[in-house]
Amino acid sequence: MEEKRLRAIEWMDGSVKFIDQTELPNKLDYVETTDYRVLIEAIKMLRVRGAPLIGITAAYAVVTAVREAIDTKVSDPLNWTMKAIREIGASRPTARNLFFALERMKEAVESKGAGEMEKLFDIVLSIAQDIEKEDEEMCLKMGEHGSSLIEDGFGIITHCNTGMLVTAGQGTALGVVYHASRQNKKLHVYADETRPLLQGARLTTWECKNYGIHVTLICDNAAATVVRQGKVNCAIVGADRIASNGDTANKIGTYNLALICKAHNVPFYVAAPYSTFDFSLKSGDEIPIEERKPEEIVKINKGWIAPEGIDAYNPAFDVTPAELISAIITEEGVFKPPYGEWKEMDAK
Amino acid sequence: MEEKRLRAIEWMDGSVKFIDQTELPNKLDYVETTDYRVLIEAIKMLRVRGAPLIGITAAYAVVTAVREAIDTKVSDPLNWTMKAIREIGASRPTARNLFFALERMKEAVESKGAGEMEKLFDIVLSIAQDIEKEDEEMCLKMGEHGSSLIEDGFGIITHCNTGMLVTAGQGTALGVVYHASRQNKKLHVYADETRPLLQGARLTTWECKNYGIHVTLICDNAAATVVRQGKVNCAIVGADRIASNGDTANKIGTYNLALICKAHNVPFYVAAPYSTFDFSLKSGDEIPIEERKPEEIVKINKGWIAPEGIDAYNPAFDVTPAELISAIITEEGVFKPPYGEWKEMDAK
Repeated sequence: MEEKRLRAIEWMDGSVKFIDQTELPNKLDYVETTDYRVLIEAIKMLRVRGAPLIGITAAYAVVTAVREAIDTKVSDPLNWTMKAIREIGASRPTARNLFFALERMKEAVESKGAGEMEKLFDIVLSIAQDIEKEDEEMCLKMGEHGSSLIEDGFGIITHCNTGMLVTAGQGTALGVVYHASRQNKKLHVYADETRPLLQGARLTTWECKNYGIHVTLICDNAAATVVRQGKVNCAIVGADRIASNGDTANKIGTYNLALICKAHNVPFYVAAPYSTFDFSLKSGDEIPIEERKPEEIVKINKGWIAPEGIDAYNPAFDVTPAELISAIITEEGVFKPPYGEWKEMDAK
Repeated sequence: MEEKRLRAIEWMDGSVKFIDQTELPNKLDYVETTDYRVLIEAIKMLRVRGAPLIGITAAYAVVTAVREAIDTKVSDPLNWTMKAIREIGASRPTARNLFFALERMKEAVESKGAGEMEKLFDIVLSIAQDIEKEDEEMCLKMGEHGSSLIEDGFGIITHCNTGMLVTAGQGTALGVVYHASRQNKKLHVYADETRPLLQGARLTTWECKNYGIHVTLICDNAAATVVRQGKVNCAIVGADRIASNGDTANKIGTYNLALICKAHNVPFYVAAPYSTFDFSLKSGDEIPIEERKPEEIVKINKGWIAPEGIDAYNPAFDVTPAELISAIITEEGVFKPPYGEWKEMDAK
């Protein structure tokens, strides 16, 4: 696995190296920096994206800030670092992982004196590496559990991008595919292009190609035809939020794909960290659906593809009802209907 | 109706005026010409598109050729005209309507002597105007029949472009919507953008806006959400070929939409000329599905949206099984399941 591993972010001999995802797939551009401000800008501009990856990036941003405080001999290094942490926290205020990461960092800073900066550096670096490692392990466990559902020769349809580019590991749904591939199962991925932002076309195809998995790009419109032609043995998608009853919010178009799979008796799997469950929500009806700007639909590559000023409706996510989901794959195991057992698990 | 009518092509005081559809929606550019070569180029370059419109354009190309033969006093005007007809026929060899139109023109040319060119001009002009008129009337009858299915306040989801830009009249599926709108029914069209070629985004939104119908553009991926939210009372789509059992080939993504409608008990209507039926085919399995170049998927507005050289599967059409179709609207009436009665009609 390691040889084929694509690292969206990495700590390398004192600096942070990350892939500028806005340049993909046209260019694989790595940025190396020791400046936390560059990392803040990367989060803001979506050069790094995906909740787990944003958390890890924020953690390494703190590491570089502490190093800078030491090397430039700032007068009040602890306060200076806390200020940097606040700046990092303001980069993208909705990503939960970013705050989880920074909370751990703040505690470390608060536990040290001004004379212990080198010690602090070792601690924050070790926290950042822990966060990275935890994410990587979570992906690996999910892959272990999920790959039991994948057989040699499978055609697999995917939606959006759920691989190495959004985690510190092999990914969630796409990670399951990588895992199965390493078990010498020969697979063929059909990647939905995933309008409007085309993460499938831009990123999933690119990841699969790099990993050596046979990948075929399709328009979302061709999914029903591909499934009906028997090219596909299962679908695997990620999740943004899962309600107690199993209803799952994910990238817009996921529900379309689930309906298509149901109509053709093709298993439809969701793969997501256990932390994706939101037990405070009874059903998917309670999941708020973000509506994004029409610009994402009406313009591509800076050119208009629709009349200027036309009304457009752009929900970013949809909700797939639990009854369309054949199984939910997590690092804790694979859950099958009837859903609900995870509550007991949660109580353990 | 006439005031709002958009004419994709028109005979105007001795010249042909058409909309250059490759410039839409960014620019409404009319081209006026008396040169049949300009019309051939327009067909080749998809400035005019859609089988009915290509037939009409070819007919008017012959009219301008006869006029040129007269005005430039060519030595053998009948042979010269026949040669022009052959050139026109070679513009796009797969469009059936083009040949239907040219066959009628050839007969006219063959029936006249070299000294009767002015008479011939009147005849070919009248044939071209007949073809145009027949198409317009067919659209109107389809609209009359189909609009009975549309109620005031309806939300209607569409796929691809099936309106004034592909016919000499109000269109097929979208023509039904226009017809209902003229009956003072307040409607809201949700236009699927229709990847890969975006005819919904580029053309349907533009037509509806011009006609004064409330139109909202959505990504194909948002269709299931829009239908589930109760925004839509029915779907109306066109057809490229209909088999004896009612299975219908149409633009890729139609089948996806039909499955979505079925899952939500929303009526799914097909509107097409009676000539779309191919009674030689028992079922949709016998309809050949054209596969087009990956370039249509991987590039938009001249920019790559996927890794160069990636494998892509691009079927241009799909087949919607008859059992998902609530009714088929034609100029001969509305057919409802169980399908098959059209055979008796055909035998009349």
